[in-house]
Amino acid sequence: MPIPKPNLNPAFNIIRLSHVELVVTDLARSRAFYVDTLGLQVTDEDSETIYLRAMEERGHHCIVLRKGDEPRARDLSFKLFDEDHLEKAEHFFRTRGHATEWVERPYQSRSFRTRDPHGIPLEFYARMDRLPPIHQQYKLYHGVKPLRIDHFNCFSPDVDASVAFYTELGFRVTEYTEDEETGRLWAAWMHRKGGVHDMAFTNGTGPRLHHTAFWVPTPLNIIDLLDLMATTGWVGNIERGPGRHGISNAFFLYIRDPDGHRIEIYCSDYQTVDPDLEPIRWDLKDPQRQTLWGAPAPKSWFEEGSLFEGTEPVPASLAAQPIVAP
Amino acid sequence: MPIPKPNLNPAFNIIRLSHVELVVTDLARSRAFYVDTLGLQVTDEDSETIYLRAMEERGHHCIVLRKGDEPRARDLSFKLFDEDHLEKAEHFFRTRGHATEWVERPYQSRSFRTRDPHGIPLEFYARMDRLPPIHQQYKLYHGVKPLRIDHFNCFSPDVDASVAFYTELGFRVTEYTEDEETGRLWAAWMHRKGGVHDMAFTNGTGPRLHHTAFWVPTPLNIIDLLDLMATTGWVGNIERGPGRHGISNAFFLYIRDPDGHRIEIYCSDYQTVDPDLEPIRWDLKDPQRQTLWGAPAPKSWFEEGSLFEGTEPVPASLAAQPIVAP
Amino acid sequence: MPIPKPNLNPAFNIIRLSHVELVVTDLARSRAFYVDTLGLQVTDEDSETIYLRAMEERGHHCIVLRKGDEPRARDLSFKLFDEDHLEKAEHFFRTRGHATEWVERPYQSRSFRTRDPHGIPLEFYARMDRLPPIHQQYKLYHGVKPLRIDHFNCFSPDVDASVAFYTELGFRVTEYTEDEETGRLWAAWMHRKGGVHDMAFTNGTGPRLHHTAFWVPTPLNIIDLLDLMATTGWVGNIERGPGRHGISNAFFLYIRDPDGHRIEIYCSDYQTVDPDLEPIRWDLKDPQRQTLWGAPAPKSWFEEGSLFEGTEPVPASLAAQPIVAP
Amino acid sequence: MPIPKPNLNPAFNIIRLSHVELVVTDLARSRAFYVDTLGLQVTDEDSETIYLRAMEERGHHCIVLRKGDEPRARDLSFKLFDEDHLEKAEHFFRTRGHATEWVERPYQSRSFRTRDPHGIPLEFYARMDRLPPIHQQYKLYHGVKPLRIDHFNCFSPDVDASVAFYTELGFRVTEYTEDEETGRLWAAWMHRKGGVHDMAFTNGTGPRLHHTAFWVPTPLNIIDLLDLMATTGWVGNIERGPGRHGISNAFFLYIRDPDGHRIEIYCSDYQTVDPDLEPIRWDLKDPQRQTLWGAPAPKSWFEEGSLFEGTEPVPASLAAQPIVAP
Ligand SMILES: [Ca+2]
Ligand SMILES: [Fe+2]
Ligand SMILES: [Fe+2]
Ligand SMILES: [Fe+2]
Ligand SMILES: [Fe+2]
Repeated sequence: MPIPKPNLNPAFNIIRLSHVELVVTDLARSRAFYVDTLGLQVTDEDSETIYLRAMEERGHHCIVLRKGDEPRARDLSFKLFDEDHLEKAEHFFRTRGHATEWVERPYQSRSFRTRDPHGIPLEFYARMDRLPPIHQQYKLYHGVKPLRIDHFNCFSPDVDASVAFYTELGFRVTEYTEDEETGRLWAAWMHRKGGVHDMAFTNGTGPRLHHTAFWVPTPLNIIDLLDLMATTGWVGNIERGPGRHGISNAFFLYIRDPDGHRIEIYCSDYQTVDPDLEPIRWDLKDPQRQTLWGAPAPKSWFEEGSLFEGTEPVPASLAAQPIVAP
Repeated sequence: MPIPKPNLNPAFNIIRLSHVELVVTDLARSRAFYVDTLGLQVTDEDSETIYLRAMEERGHHCIVLRKGDEPRARDLSFKLFDEDHLEKAEHFFRTRGHATEWVERPYQSRSFRTRDPHGIPLEFYARMDRLPPIHQQYKLYHGVKPLRIDHFNCFSPDVDASVAFYTELGFRVTEYTEDEETGRLWAAWMHRKGGVHDMAFTNGTGPRLHHTAFWVPTPLNIIDLLDLMATTGWVGNIERGPGRHGISNAFFLYIRDPDGHRIEIYCSDYQTVDPDLEPIRWDLKDPQRQTLWGAPAPKSWFEEGSLFEGTEPVPASLAAQPIVAP
Repeated sequence: MPIPKPNLNPAFNIIRLSHVELVVTDLARSRAFYVDTLGLQVTDEDSETIYLRAMEERGHHCIVLRKGDEPRARDLSFKLFDEDHLEKAEHFFRTRGHATEWVERPYQSRSFRTRDPHGIPLEFYARMDRLPPIHQQYKLYHGVKPLRIDHFNCFSPDVDASVAFYTELGFRVTEYTEDEETGRLWAAWMHRKGGVHDMAFTNGTGPRLHHTAFWVPTPLNIIDLLDLMATTGWVGNIERGPGRHGISNAFFLYIRDPDGHRIEIYCSDYQTVDPDLEPIRWDLKDPQRQTLWGAPAPKSWFEEGSLFEGTEPVPASLAAQPIVAP
Repeated sequence: MPIPKPNLNPAFNIIRLSHVELVVTDLARSRAFYVDTLGLQVTDEDSETIYLRAMEERGHHCIVLRKGDEPRARDLSFKLFDEDHLEKAEHFFRTRGHATEWVERPYQSRSFRTRDPHGIPLEFYARMDRLPPIHQQYKLYHGVKPLRIDHFNCFSPDVDASVAFYTELGFRVTEYTEDEETGRLWAAWMHRKGGVHDMAFTNGTGPRLHHTAFWVPTPLNIIDLLDLMATTGWVGNIERGPGRHGISNAFFLYIRDPDGHRIEIYCSDYQTVDPDLEPIRWDLKDPQRQTLWGAPAPKSWFEEGSLFEGTEPVPASLAAQPIVAP
């Protein structure tokens, strides 16, 4: 098994993924996508920036849209247990040779930035402004009724290396895809918060952000979103799905925002809090790995992703290919 | 508009589609598909034949599986208002030059067979044995929880001619696809019972039976069936879907039985009882016609169908092509 | 069996229930209920009147709200097959001694009014203005996503007499409740359009309108409506449900509009087009008759209803009592 | 606020609730309830005992049914992080004056028993036999499709004291009900695993086990269970629901097993992993606290519960009363 033993006592405690900042070229058009169509709630906005949260979140933001010239993904942000763990985390990265930088973020306590071994920009903080609950204000629910941010998925040029590093950070592998011929990892799903993942890696030119996922109540909400997108000018932004993932067993849909940033709508995976949870292995050649029902993903899904600001992607060291739709 | 005026006072009253007999080559394997997987209820069976009904049906059968050497579709059967209308119907066909034949069918009052202008074998009867209701015996529900047979769809080598003939029989067009260049019909949906269709025609080498459809409670039952088929050895029998039809607005899935007979699982179309209901026109080039969400149907869906016993199909007279998945 | 034989060849052809006019005392408040909360679409409005349709309807209106001093139900309206049947219907009522009156209704071809034997005001017409389809304009769907008007239910002081009369009009009984001791009908469900009912009668001081029902896609839409009403100031307007009816097998919810007019939200009954469909008998003492899951209806549900304009209700001749919640 | 500050650094790490042993008087009848009706999977059984797991669980059991003369609840069991934490936990209880006892449990590593301050029998262990995943064996899903055990709810004679004690164990309050007049707690929901609760307390004669809850995929599964129970002889075992809880926002149903042990079917609460999650306060007099849609719970729901083996319940010290259905 190419999966390292989980590190059950990491140097600091990452609670969960928190948010990502996406650079978008047309803020109004992005607002039409994220707010009017997906149904995320605006918590602050001005002419340059929109802050969004999902329906059950009490933290101030799970997505920040920032106007810019080129579509880019900025820092993937994670919430730490407390300020003490924030200190420990910064120390960890710095002493391992990852440059760190303390930054001020609106609505957050002090935060630091760093990069993972492949150059993915990461942000860590412990406290974010808390907002009153809105999960029982049902008149606000619309679009796909997004409940919370669920996970990030990144292209990695070396998934084995990514898994080794994030394992050290305390992420635990729940499922993974192995290339049988080389014995190397082709993809892996790793969690902190007790679901199938907070962070996943897929073999490919990277680092690039493959997608950001939102959790919704039931598969019917995904069907509602498809009907809505199909009849409001967004049919071309539907990329893959709906379907059931083999890996994670979740019901999914992939869509693209106006700049091509990929969003997954996702629900019904399973609870993973047991420290002795056994990772599930999948073979790269298993067509039910991607979609339990057998339909392969389109080429764009394997090839396209958002560039991270300030990092040049490199080709994957593993050449193995999954099944791609013709 | 290439659609003829509806005939609101036809010579006899067809209540609804009733059933079809399918010739299958391995009765046990077909039973595993229709009974164990789809969830149809056996109402009678012996070594040669299985009679099935769906959960809300009180007539004895909606599908008859008969063992044979070659997969074939036999008569498409329709229920008439009463014995008097049965006489009128037989007279109608006979005097129009369609050979008719009175036949004895188990569990049915006397029935007659004939053929439509393209050779589709048709059966008509007025009374079938009635069985006690089982729609509230919820322990019997399983598989996709099929509630009732919904419609037949046939390849026709000349959809204009098919529509003209079935219009005379009292079927009313609810939606249709027009080839803009020739002004001819590429497909049409026609009903008797107050839904979008009892019978539909698609341009292609024909006559052949394209599919038989069953109505289910909600889209979630279709997702359940996909999960079940995907994990019980039937993943290769999933052909297209799930999706929302543009035409009919229904949620659908197409699957293939062990002999390749195509079954559609279908729900949530609309009520069409108004005699002045306006047919909805779709352009053959509109990608949302087939699937509102934009995904094209696979090649097999356009090319494969069940041969009707005793009829040799001929190529379609209209060469126009819809959008096919690569 | 206390049910008369169905009249399969009535003197004229009623296609389906069409609409009802409700007198309401605060038009703005009623708009908040029917439009903002239920999700019906406004097709016309002025300071005195609001016309509404549901999402799959192409006729101009299924509910007319008219401002008035006292809450009242006005005519229950039915659509006839064509103008010829309209003539036949008017003749039928007039020659049976029911006064008829030709009236002009906005958006309808000529219509006539009459009353049933207990004084329920009825309206008949053949043509209503047709509107473009909106069932695929998914951005318009909200509230409970009402698809179409489904049925009326009226208190009758003599259900046997009501059933006898509506049977003559061609309505067919699908299910009924019998009082075992007297052998009399306590309630009956009667259809024209191929569902469980267009019109139902419940024993009680009458005639009064018990409720008007709307069809919705799935039980989850009813749950969504409950969540919405519960958090937007309408929690006191929730009267009974959600639940599964024993009779009809439908999933239901009863709510009250601002004037107390009762609305049912309803889905998933069954198809009844067969002329030989056997009515299902229920015993008045069967607690699963009302709610398959066993919960009795509240007292208000048995006692309260909307007065019909111009008709004084009389007590029921049958004293038998169903199970009422304490 | 009557809620103590959370103890974010407890002496040992409880991962989640694990299982409960229920003494039942008729093992076959209980099997019909838990296995044939709810759909739990048997992992071992003999003439005295049945071990059950839910569909996504990989631990050997979440419910143990043991034949006995009187219905009783035995130990509420919790899974600890590892063997080291098991030692720490045993030390904690012992040094606080709670008698502990090391026991051998089939399919578990060594376990110890103790009691909470009110006498609730508790069991702790770190490792249970792991079974192969079955969550994608869809042919096994039936009944309500239970995915996992979700929480215990206990009557406590002093909820303030219970909350103080479980807070010390590291449970965190997510929502609570306060009696405004006394400022005392009437109920509280406390979690370890990142949902609304692993353990809840309700004011009443106690300790007694109020209910054990199972998580299911969607509200439609609960409707399916109601239909099944209503038509297979279990209608009298439906106690309350379906409904939406105000507290937790979950969709729920309460049913009773053949011995009166109460089971809740539950889904769609929210994620609570943030250490700074603010507890939500409810007033005891708020009717939407229990059921967002306003329906009060029946008397039995407030009064009946399972006795814990070896503990005599005492009356609650707080006399305040919630709203009870008439
Ligand atoms: Ca036989
Ligand atoms: Fe994902
Ligand atoms: Fe079809
Ligand atoms: Fe009704
Ligand atoms: Fe609970």
